[in-house]
Amino acid sequence: MAQENLSVVLHAKGDLRLETRPVPEPGPNEVLLQMHSVGICGSDVHYWQNGRIGDFVLKKPMVLGHEAAGRVVKVGSAVTHLKPGDRVAIEPGVPREMDEFFKGGQYNLSPTIFFCATPPDDGNLCRYYTHSANFCYKLPDNVTFEEGALIEPLSVGIHACRRAGVTLGSTVLICGAGPIGLVSLLVAKAMGASKVIITDLFAERLGMAKELGADFQLTVKKDDGPQQLAKKVEDTLGAQPQITIECTGVESCIQTALYATRSGGVVMLVGLGAPMTTVPLVNAAVREVDIRGVFRYCNTWPMAIAMLSSGKVNVKPLVTHRFPLEQAVQAFETTRQGLGIKVMLKCDKNDQNP
Amino acid sequence: MAQENLSVVLHAKGDLRLETRPVPEPGPNEVLLQMHSVGICGSDVHYWQNGRIGDFVLKKPMVLGHEAAGRVVKVGSAVTHLKPGDRVAIEPGVPREMDEFFKGGQYNLSPTIFFCATPPDDGNLCRYYTHSANFCYKLPDNVTFEEGALIEPLSVGIHACRRAGVTLGSTVLICGAGPIGLVSLLVAKAMGASKVIITDLFAERLGMAKELGADFQLTVKKDDGPQQLAKKVEDTLGAQPQITIECTGVESCIQTALYATRSGGVVMLVGLGAPMTTVPLVNAAVREVDIRGVFRYCNTWPMAIAMLSSGKVNVKPLVTHRFPLEQAVQAFETTRQGLGIKVMLKCDKNDQNP
Amino acid sequence: MAQENLSVVLHAKGDLRLETRPVPEPGPNEVLLQMHSVGICGSDVHYWQNGRIGDFVLKKPMVLGHEAAGRVVKVGSAVTHLKPGDRVAIEPGVPREMDEFFKGGQYNLSPTIFFCATPPDDGNLCRYYTHSANFCYKLPDNVTFEEGALIEPLSVGIHACRRAGVTLGSTVLICGAGPIGLVSLLVAKAMGASKVIITDLFAERLGMAKELGADFQLTVKKDDGPQQLAKKVEDTLGAQPQITIECTGVESCIQTALYATRSGGVVMLVGLGAPMTTVPLVNAAVREVDIRGVFRYCNTWPMAIAMLSSGKVNVKPLVTHRFPLEQAVQAFETTRQGLGIKVMLKCDKNDQNP
Amino acid sequence: MAQENLSVVLHAKGDLRLETRPVPEPGPNEVLLQMHSVGICGSDVHYWQNGRIGDFVLKKPMVLGHEAAGRVVKVGSAVTHLKPGDRVAIEPGVPREMDEFFKGGQYNLSPTIFFCATPPDDGNLCRYYTHSANFCYKLPDNVTFEEGALIEPLSVGIHACRRAGVTLGSTVLICGAGPIGLVSLLVAKAMGASKVIITDLFAERLGMAKELGADFQLTVKKDDGPQQLAKKVEDTLGAQPQITIECTGVESCIQTALYATRSGGVVMLVGLGAPMTTVPLVNAAVREVDIRGVFRYCNTWPMAIAMLSSGKVNVKPLVTHRFPLEQAVQAFETTRQGLGIKVMLKCDKNDQNP
Repeated sequence: MAQENLSVVLHAKGDLRLETRPVPEPGPNEVLLQMHSVGICGSDVHYWQNGRIGDFVLKKPMVLGHEAAGRVVKVGSAVTHLKPGDRVAIEPGVPREMDEFFKGGQYNLSPTIFFCATPPDDGNLCRYYTHSANFCYKLPDNVTFEEGALIEPLSVGIHACRRAGVTLGSTVLICGAGPIGLVSLLVAKAMGASKVIITDLFAERLGMAKELGADFQLTVKKDDGPQQLAKKVEDTLGAQPQITIECTGVESCIQTALYATRSGGVVMLVGLGAPMTTVPLVNAAVREVDIRGVFRYCNTWPMAIAMLSSGKVNVKPLVTHRFPLEQAVQAFETTRQGLGIKVMLKCDKNDQNP
Repeated sequence: MAQENLSVVLHAKGDLRLETRPVPEPGPNEVLLQMHSVGICGSDVHYWQNGRIGDFVLKKPMVLGHEAAGRVVKVGSAVTHLKPGDRVAIEPGVPREMDEFFKGGQYNLSPTIFFCATPPDDGNLCRYYTHSANFCYKLPDNVTFEEGALIEPLSVGIHACRRAGVTLGSTVLICGAGPIGLVSLLVAKAMGASKVIITDLFAERLGMAKELGADFQLTVKKDDGPQQLAKKVEDTLGAQPQITIECTGVESCIQTALYATRSGGVVMLVGLGAPMTTVPLVNAAVREVDIRGVFRYCNTWPMAIAMLSSGKVNVKPLVTHRFPLEQAVQAFETTRQGLGIKVMLKCDKNDQNP
Repeated sequence: MAQENLSVVLHAKGDLRLETRPVPEPGPNEVLLQMHSVGICGSDVHYWQNGRIGDFVLKKPMVLGHEAAGRVVKVGSAVTHLKPGDRVAIEPGVPREMDEFFKGGQYNLSPTIFFCATPPDDGNLCRYYTHSANFCYKLPDNVTFEEGALIEPLSVGIHACRRAGVTLGSTVLICGAGPIGLVSLLVAKAMGASKVIITDLFAERLGMAKELGADFQLTVKKDDGPQQLAKKVEDTLGAQPQITIECTGVESCIQTALYATRSGGVVMLVGLGAPMTTVPLVNAAVREVDIRGVFRYCNTWPMAIAMLSSGKVNVKPLVTHRFPLEQAVQAFETTRQGLGIKVMLKCDKNDQNP
Repeated sequence: MAQENLSVVLHAKGDLRLETRPVPEPGPNEVLLQMHSVGICGSDVHYWQNGRIGDFVLKKPMVLGHEAAGRVVKVGSAVTHLKPGDRVAIEPGVPREMDEFFKGGQYNLSPTIFFCATPPDDGNLCRYYTHSANFCYKLPDNVTFEEGALIEPLSVGIHACRRAGVTLGSTVLICGAGPIGLVSLLVAKAMGASKVIITDLFAERLGMAKELGADFQLTVKKDDGPQQLAKKVEDTLGAQPQITIECTGVESCIQTALYATRSGGVVMLVGLGAPMTTVPLVNAAVREVDIRGVFRYCNTWPMAIAMLSSGKVNVKPLVTHRFPLEQAVQAFETTRQGLGIKVMLKCDKNDQNP
C-alpha cells in the first residue's frame, strides 16, 4: 500500500501538526481502515489547548480523533466478520485485559483499556488507521459515514439515559445544550420520555434543542440561584423531573440538578468540572435522589446502529461544519470558538460526502 | 340527583340486559362519575358468552365495562385532589387491603383487589358510577375521553413492555395483532424498539399493525410449525428478536415464541389459553430465555396520560366503532364478531364526541 | 380502660417531661397497644437537645419514641389480622395518602407520611398507644419484644444494604460503628458479604463491631486524610470495597467513602451531616461509583422478622442499657452521653423482660 | 517435560478408557496445569452412558472432567497474573469470540464458547492440562484444591440463586437434594434466605440437606400430585415460597414448582428433562411467577472464592468419595450408581490430600 497517511498529530500543548505517517499493517485481529469522517470532540480541543485532561497527560506526539467511521481496506488473518469494502463505525475503546470489569459487561471501567486519542493511545484523525476488528461495526447501507462517526457522542447519551433509567413517560431535565446535551435529548425522547426541558446560557443553542425535540427550553443567567432555577423547572413541567442529565460540569448546575430532581429520581453527572464540588448532598440523600456518573459507554454501538437505521434517531442536524482533513487546523479552531455544534473532518480525498 | 342510571348488566351466561339502576352516592374517598366513554373488552364478551373466566364465575347480576373515562359530578368528603367537572380516566383495579403486594408496589397481585366487571365486582358501563378517587386520574385538556378509556388496554401493553424490558434498539416479536397486540406495538415503538415484527392469521389485522408502525408483518397459517415460524422471524429481522410478546394464548404460538427468542431474551405471556400447555421449556431454559406473565397492570395511568398528552403514542385509530349506550347489545355483538378493533360505548346522552 | 398512660413528652428544646395522658381509643383501622419496649434513637435525643432536625421543627408538645414493640389490647372495628394479646412490632411510618410513591412501593418517600416522633406526629414512648393496624406486624413466639423494637434501626441497615445491592461475596466498607453502622454490618453479613471493614474514631465501638462479625476494624484519627484512609482500606482488603455504607455524615468520611469505593461500586449515604458538602464528585462520577441516599425504609418489617425468627441475624447484643419508663430522663441522658449502644425503655410495669 | 499424562478419555458411548497423552504446551495466553482434584459430574456420566447430551454428540475421543483445580507449572509468554506454583481453580467455559453476549457480561450464552468435556472440547481429567490463564483463578492458602474444584457445581447454585434474586429473608423451595440442589441450598442460605424447604424422593439425601442447613425437608412419593405437594410446601412454610429452584427436570416437579411459588415470585429451571414439557403456564403467568433458566454460569469464580475463603460457605461435606486417577472407572461407576454426593478424582500422584 503506497498511499500517504496524512495525520493530525498533537505534539505538545498548543502544538497541533498535520504530518504524514506510514500506513500501518493490521494485526491478526485487526482491520486496516481508510478513514472517511471524524468528528472533533471537546476533549480533542482540550488536549490541544491544555496538553492534558485530569491524570491523562500528553507525553509524546499523539494522533487526535475518536468519533470516526471508515471503510475496511484490509483484514487481519483471524478476522472473519468483516471484509474489504465494508463501511464501519469505530468504537474507540478496546479493552486490553479480560479483567472482572470486562467479564462483567462493563469494559469501559477496565483500567487498562485502549482509547483513541487518550494519551498515550493514538486516535484516528488520519487517512489510514488500524483497529480491533471486534470494535468495528458494519454500517447498513442507509446509515452514512457521518452518522457512523456520530455514534460516538450518541453513545454518551445512550449510556447516560440507560443508566438513568429513562423510560416511557419519563420527565427529564437536561442541563446544557451542547453536543452531549443534545444527543442526550435525542436519546431520552427515543426511549419514551414524555417531557424534556433543557437549559443553557445561550438562546441559539436552545433553539437547536427545540428543533431536535425539546419540549421546554430555559435560558439560564449566570447569577440565577440553583434553588430558584430548580423551582422554575418544576413550575414549567408542572412537577419535578424524575431524571436530570447534567452535561455542564459547572458546580451551580450540579446543585440545581440535585435540588430540581424528584424524590426517588436520578441525577446523571455527564459533564465534568473541578475535582472538588460543593453540593447539597443531604437534600439529595434524604429524598433518595441517586447520583450516578458515566465513564464513556459500553455496549452501545449495535443499538445505536439499530436506531439510526430504523430512523428512530436523527443525528444529521448535529453536523454544522465540514472540513477536508487538510484543513484540520481551521476545523479545530472552529470547534474551539464554539461555533455550531459538530465539526466533521473529511478524511477521504475521493469521497467528501456525508 | 334525579337522573336515571341506565346500566349494562349481565344476569347470566348469554343474558345481557340494559336496565335502570339507582344513581349511587360516593363514599368519603370516592367520586361519583358521569360516564362518558367505555370500551368493550374481550373479557366482557367472554363473560357474556360463558358466564365465567377461569375461577371467576358470575353468580349474581353484574354491570360490565372496565375501559372507561368520565366526568366527576360529586366528590366524597375526604377527596381533595378532584372536583366536580374534572375529566378523569378510571383505573378499574383498586386494592382493598394494604397487604405486602400493595406495600411493595405490585397492587395488581393483591388477592383481594376490587376490579370492575370481574365477578362479583360491578363495572362502569352505565350512566353514573362511583369509584375510589385515588384511582381516578385527571385528563389534560388535550386528551379525549376515548383516549382516557383506552388507557386501560394501553396499560396492558405498558405493563408487558415494561416487564419485558423493551428499551432503545430492542427487536421485538409480537404474536397476534388484536387490540392487545396493537397496543403492545405502540408501546414498544414508543419505548425505543428499533424493529417490531407482528404475526397474525388475518391480513387485515396486520394491515392495521402496519399503519400503527409495525416494521414487519408475518401472516401465519394454521399449520405452520413453530420452529419454521421462528426461523421465518429470524430471517425477516436478520437476527432473533430479543423480546417476544405473546398475545394469543395459543399453544403453538407460545411454542413459536420460545423458539424464536434470542438467548438471554424474554418471552412475555399476555394472551391466555388452556390451563396446561406443552412447551419446549428446556430450549428456553438453556438459552436463559425468561418467561414472564402479566396480570393486568399497576402504576401505568400517570405515564400513559403523559404519553397521550405529549403525543408520543396515538391510540385514536384503535376506535373503529361507536354506539350510544342504549345500543349496547349491538355493540357487544359487533365485538363478538371480531369486527374492527375497539368498540366504544358512549354513555353521555349530551356528549357523544370522542 | 381506666389505666394511666405515662408518656415521655418533649415540650420544647431541652424540656423533656414525663406526664400522664389519656389512653386513646383506636380508630376503625387501628389497634390500641400496650407498649412494652421502646429504644431511644439519636434523633429523639437530637430533638430534645435542639428542638428540630432540619426542616422538622417542634412547635407543640410531642411524645418521643419510634423504635417500639407492644401488645395489642384492643382492635378497631375494621381490623381482621390482629387480635388482643398479639405481640407486635410497630413500623413508625404510615403513609397518609395513596400517592404515586405509595402506589409504586416507595411509601417512605410520600411527602405527607405520618411518622412517630417527627413533628408534629406523636411517638410511642408511653404506656398506651394507637397505631395503624396495617403497620403493626405480629411477632413469632421466638422473637422478643426488644428484638421487635430493634427492627426499626435494623430496617435502616436493611434498606441501605438492599439499595446498595449487597450480595454474595460483596466487599463492604462501613464508616462509623454506632448503632446504624452495626446493624448495617449485621445485615451485610447476612446478605452474603464476604469481607466487611468498619471504621470509627473509638476503639471500644470497633470492639463491638468485631464481636458482631466485622472482618476488619480500622481506627480513624481526626486528621487522617481521606485519600490516605481510602488507601488503607484498599490495602487491608486487598482490593477496593465494592460498596461503602457511610454512617457518620462527616464530610471527610464521605470523601473517604468516594475515594475508597471500587469503580462501578456504590456509596450509600446513611449518616447525615451539614446541608452543603464538598466532595470529589468527578472522581466518583468517572469511575461510575453511584451515590445513593436512604430515607428511613420501606417494606422491611416482614423480612426483618423472618431474619430474627430464623436466627440469621442476632440483634440482642445491641441492647446495653435498660430503664423502666419512669426513668426516661436518665435513659435519655445515657444515650446523650454516648454510653453503650442501644438504651431500651421498658414501658410495661408488669413485664420488664427483654 | 518428560512426565506422562494419564487421561480419562471417552471414545464412544460406554467406552471409557484410561490412556496416556502427550503433555501439552501452553499458548501465549495459557497456563499448563498439573491437575490435582477433579470432581465427577452427572454430565460426565451421561456422556459415558449415552454418548450425547441433547445436541452435543460425541464424534471423536474426548477427555472428560470439568470440575477441577490444579497447580500452575508453566505460563504462556503473555501471562502476567499467574506464575508457576500458583494453586488455581479452573472455570471450564472460555468464550472464543468477542460477540455481543461476551461484551454484555453474559459470556456463558456465547454460542461458540469452549467448554471442558462438552464435545468436541477436551476436559481436564488428566495429569497435565492447558487452559486460558484468564479463566484460572488463584486460590488463597485457606482454600483447598477440592474446594477449588467444587466451585464449578457451586457456581451453578450461585448463578441460579443470583438470577432468582434470593436476598435477605427470602423463602425458598428447592426441588431435588442432589449435588445441585445442595449447592443451591448452601448459596441460598448464604445470600440471606430465612427459610429453605427441600424435597426429594430419598430420605438419606434429605438428611444431608438437613445437615447442610435446610430448614425443612419434604419426602416426595412418586404419585404425589403437584398441587397437593404445592399445598404441603405452603403449609410447612406458613406461606408460599417466594422462589423455587427446580433441580430435577422432572415434569411433575416443574408443575409443583409453578403451583407452589408465591405470586410475583420466581421459578428457576436448573434441572433439565424432556424437550417438551406440559406445565400450568397460565397459572404462573397470571400470578406473574417468572420462569427462568440457567445455562451454566458466568462471573462466579471470584465471589465463590471469596465465600469459601471467608468461611461463609462450607462445601467440604459434599465430597463423599475419593479415588486416585488410576481408578477413574471405579469412580465413574460409583457416581453412576448414585452413591454419596460428590466423587473426587485425585490426579496428583504425590499429593492426594483434599
